Amino acid sequence: MAHTRTAPAGTPLGDSFHLYDTTLRDGAQGEGISYSVTDKLTSARLLDSLGVGFIEGGWPGALPKDTAFFQRAATELDLRHAALVAFGSTRKAGRRADQDPQVRALLDSGAPVITLVAKTDRRHIERALRTDVAENCAMVRDTVRFLVSEGRRVFLDGEHFFDGYADDPDTALRVLEAAMAAGADVSVLCDTNGGQLPGRLAEIVAEVIERTGFRIGIHCQDDTGCAVANTIAAVEAGATHVQCTANGYGERTGNADLFAVIGNLATKLDMPVLPRSRLAELTGTARSLAATAHVSPDRYQPYVGAAAFAHKAGLHASAMKVDPGLYQHIDPDVVGNESRILVTEMAGRASLELKCLQLGFDVQDTEAVSRVVARVKQLEADGWSFESADASLALLLHDELGNTPTGQNAPRRLPPVFTPLTYQVVERHDTDGRVVSEASVRLRVERQPEADNGPFATADTGEVTATAEGDRPVAALDAALRRALAPRLPWVTETALADYSVRVLDNASGAPALTRVLVVSRDAEREWTTVGVHASVVVAAMLALRDALTYKPLGDTLSAKRPDRVLPAR
Amino acid sequence: MAHTRTAPAGTPLGDSFHLYDTTLRDGAQGEGISYSVTDKLTSARLLDSLGVGFIEGGWPGALPKDTAFFQRAATELDLRHAALVAFGSTRKAGRRADQDPQVRALLDSGAPVITLVAKTDRRHIERALRTDVAENCAMVRDTVRFLVSEGRRVFLDGEHFFDGYADDPDTALRVLEAAMAAGADVSVLCDTNGGQLPGRLAEIVAEVIERTGFRIGIHCQDDTGCAVANTIAAVEAGATHVQCTANGYGERTGNADLFAVIGNLATKLDMPVLPRSRLAELTGTARSLAATAHVSPDRYQPYVGAAAFAHKAGLHASAMKVDPGLYQHIDPDVVGNESRILVTEMAGRASLELKCLQLGFDVQDTEAVSRVVARVKQLEADGWSFESADASLALLLHDELGNTPTGQNAPRRLPPVFTPLTYQVVERHDTDGRVVSEASVRLRVERQPEADNGPFATADTGEVTATAEGDRPVAALDAALRRALAPRLPWVTETALADYSVRVLDNASGAPALTRVLVVSRDAEREWTTVGVHASVVVAAMLALRDALTYKPLGDTLSAKRPDRVLPAR
Repeated sequence: MAHTRTAPAGTPLGDSFHLYDTTLRDGAQGEGISYSVTDKLTSARLLDSLGVGFIEGGWPGALPKDTAFFQRAATELDLRHAALVAFGSTRKAGRRADQDPQVRALLDSGAPVITLVAKTDRRHIERALRTDVAENCAMVRDTVRFLVSEGRRVFLDGEHFFDGYADDPDTALRVLEAAMAAGADVSVLCDTNGGQLPGRLAEIVAEVIERTGFRIGIHCQDDTGCAVANTIAAVEAGATHVQCTANGYGERTGNADLFAVIGNLATKLDMPVLPRSRLAELTGTARSLAATAHVSPDRYQPYVGAAAFAHKAGLHASAMKVDPGLYQHIDPDVVGNESRILVTEMAGRASLELKCLQLGFDVQDTEAVSRVVARVKQLEADGWSFESADASLALLLHDELGNTPTGQNAPRRLPPVFTPLTYQVVERHDTDGRVVSEASVRLRVERQPEADNGPFATADTGEVTATAEGDRPVAALDAALRRALAPRLPWVTETALADYSVRVLDNASGAPALTRVLVVSRDAEREWTTVGVHASVVVAAMLALRDALTYKPLGDTLSAKRPDRVLPAR
Repeated sequence: MAHTRTAPAGTPLGDSFHLYDTTLRDGAQGEGISYSVTDKLTSARLLDSLGVGFIEGGWPGALPKDTAFFQRAATELDLRHAALVAFGSTRKAGRRADQDPQVRALLDSGAPVITLVAKTDRRHIERALRTDVAENCAMVRDTVRFLVSEGRRVFLDGEHFFDGYADDPDTALRVLEAAMAAGADVSVLCDTNGGQLPGRLAEIVAEVIERTGFRIGIHCQDDTGCAVANTIAAVEAGATHVQCTANGYGERTGNADLFAVIGNLATKLDMPVLPRSRLAELTGTARSLAATAHVSPDRYQPYVGAAAFAHKAGLHASAMKVDPGLYQHIDPDVVGNESRILVTEMAGRASLELKCLQLGFDVQDTEAVSRVVARVKQLEADGWSFESADASLALLLHDELGNTPTGQNAPRRLPPVFTPLTYQVVERHDTDGRVVSEASVRLRVERQPEADNGPFATADTGEVTATAEGDRPVAALDAALRRALAPRLPWVTETALADYSVRVLDNASGAPALTRVLVVSRDAEREWTTVGVHASVVVAAMLALRDALTYKPLGDTLSAKRPDRVLPAR
């Protein structure tokens, strides 16, 4: 039984400050978010590993999936830091708490902590709940008392607290008092419709603490774009319990983002809400929780987004060479993130030169660097993106800079391994419901001069053809290419398609949509990413797959650090 | 000449409060954002029409695209509310302002207002600029004086102001004083690295106003997730000029979102920063500016996002029926947005019933409603989404509820117009570089009983085949379907494919990616949207296209309000 482990363990602040995660309950109400029970168990493990103190798993009894989650959690979850929380409502009007099935379901969940939601806005009590304030308070008191008598720690979520307090402060406080007098530990002030701004919200938090002396928590929705700021303002005003969701998932505009709140508390207010070693897991945890929610990570997310420390402007990139600390609000290592220099049309020479050095190219030839800038600008204007496709960028750099860090004079033009002549992919749906992709290719194998290419040289050129099936068009095309090339270029079999992604780019107004294919290839030592862009997914895939094979000899000679595998997030 | 029109016109607050947009300069530094000159002109028209006071167009002289923008703006832009602003730097160290080419380019832009960026952090002055505070102040003073003497209104952007002020307040203030003494109008305090939180930021703004009496502006980046809150806090502390970008575009995590700032100022602080009629254009303008930036609108954006007033939880949807005001922080009409009830697995009976009524279905049969909820849950678990595809949802509702609001007893099962037997799409790349998609279909036309189907009835069933080309697979498949069906079902020619979108759904961890195709169809009166989901884009397209034709007779009988055309945003 986990009932005795009701306080968070292993964080420097212990029970005196609560990081309370409600991703699995309130976050699941976000548009586009849907968790299976297994997803919820995985998410809970990630949150626990990060060091969150409380994990709200759902509403047992109300949603079958949540009931199942608590059942499986009892045997499958072994939490090290966090206490599991069941969320639910008070007893219904006119019913005994110990006989209310919804309340019993909370007990039956086995969760050591229970968060009860209660209405604190008189208008909601009268119009939505259709009861009066006295009965509403009795419902809160009875339910808290019963759950506490059964050995559970109880928190109270005061729904619509800020609107209720503004309209009728005495009623709002009466509801909190009913809960705390009956044994609840924390009164959580919820900005349920998300309409608050930090200034007034902080005043109310301070006022409630002053008037009641209760331990106060905060729960903010992001309808004014201020959920994170509101949460921080509440902490500065004395709240010691923050309810957040991973990546800000939640109804409408979402909830306060757990990672931004942790980042701000830890690095701006110097509150050790996580051990330092765990703080460095912030970025990885955020991205894993996006995967578990089946959504793309938000590139632009504070602290943990792929763009959070990305520098594009030539001016900044140039100064970054002098002193990164001048242009970043924190060292990204602290939260497990990293600085990136984006090679884009905005880039000046400085950002491109940084990227060249990172990939292992010399930058002495200033005219050649200018040509690279011009080509990147043109390609990006045409929908290409080299932000992730380091191997395609390396081919372009090699083409213009024509050197390697070892000082060899490699040929200025690296010939492509092959030239595609005709090719097609059929996607076919048969009467039996079977769907298959079949690719046919006719290619010309290009001569790779002996002197420059060593093991990759071939004089055995000419036309080759092959046909292959795959479960999807890109995989079928890859299989056909390898089948056609392998007899002439045996080294092709040492490489393989590791992963790929297909993204339909947003239409420019009226323009036909483009498809961008990113291909991740690997051999025994490395992974590398290439890109192709075209209106046709088949042509885009061919461009990326050709770059993937053409890069292999270059990758072997470049002493560059292994290009990170970065699949795009948006 | 526009030089005399340097103050915003047509907003209730006139020049006493500045909405200053820097989307086209600072927003363009966001990862994934790239504007053509035409995009910039279109964006400027949208911002002007909304009623923004100042539009920063770019950095003439530094970026060729920005120079071209100001050239074309002089003849092609006719701004009604806004003054155009050129952004640039002070003279270089050791050079005369009137002879500095970069300063001359600012004048040559013809912009009536010029915003000069200057360093206010001593460490940046010494380490990045490599000069001293005195020369830095002289650079500011000389450049401001020269531009003012040439008849321009000048604002000063104090770069890294908050870090600079924390480190050495006297230096930071000296730079502002140099500008204001030379004739600048506004000192803009920039949180350039975005590391501020609202509490301390507001204290500094108030302190600077108290110490200097200057007119103060604010420019916030979103690295702590607090850019909007910081901007609002600065206004509450006395700032009267806010620099924002459309949808928060900008370097790293972005800038303060113009629309959230306007929403908060107008609806929370009751500041009439826009005329009320313009405020209702907020949502449309935000989405148009996303299109102009070639990125998807952010569903979760405050005030203007598609999900900003979307209700998913059964509890809320149920109470929404009682009183929408209880669950929304503002009336969405005020900002031109709308409430939506999301039909998803989280939905209780209440949200589905609301949707049924909206689409024109009766909800008397409670068992049937339960079956619909179960089917929607299962389909959404399999990757389908009915949030935009009202026509596919209507088919599903018709299937289960089998009624229409006119009380007719329509058949409980609406037979599909046809059954696909075999079909395939070839995407072929020829030697001449031509890329074409060719679809072949073999279908069985299904009998549509005379009694129930009126003009859509057919007894002329059986197999039909056709082949057609298109520039893309979905268009080719649509063309082949229409060609095959038209001889038996002449009404098919009265409908057409209006638009479609293909989205590759994010992989669940390890699972194969699914493709979701949304098809927008139209006839003379209506547009309707249908959805198909499958690993193969061809099968997904077939499912959506079949629903599109099957819906046509139902759409004609449903007296539902025309389903809005909502293409998905993420």
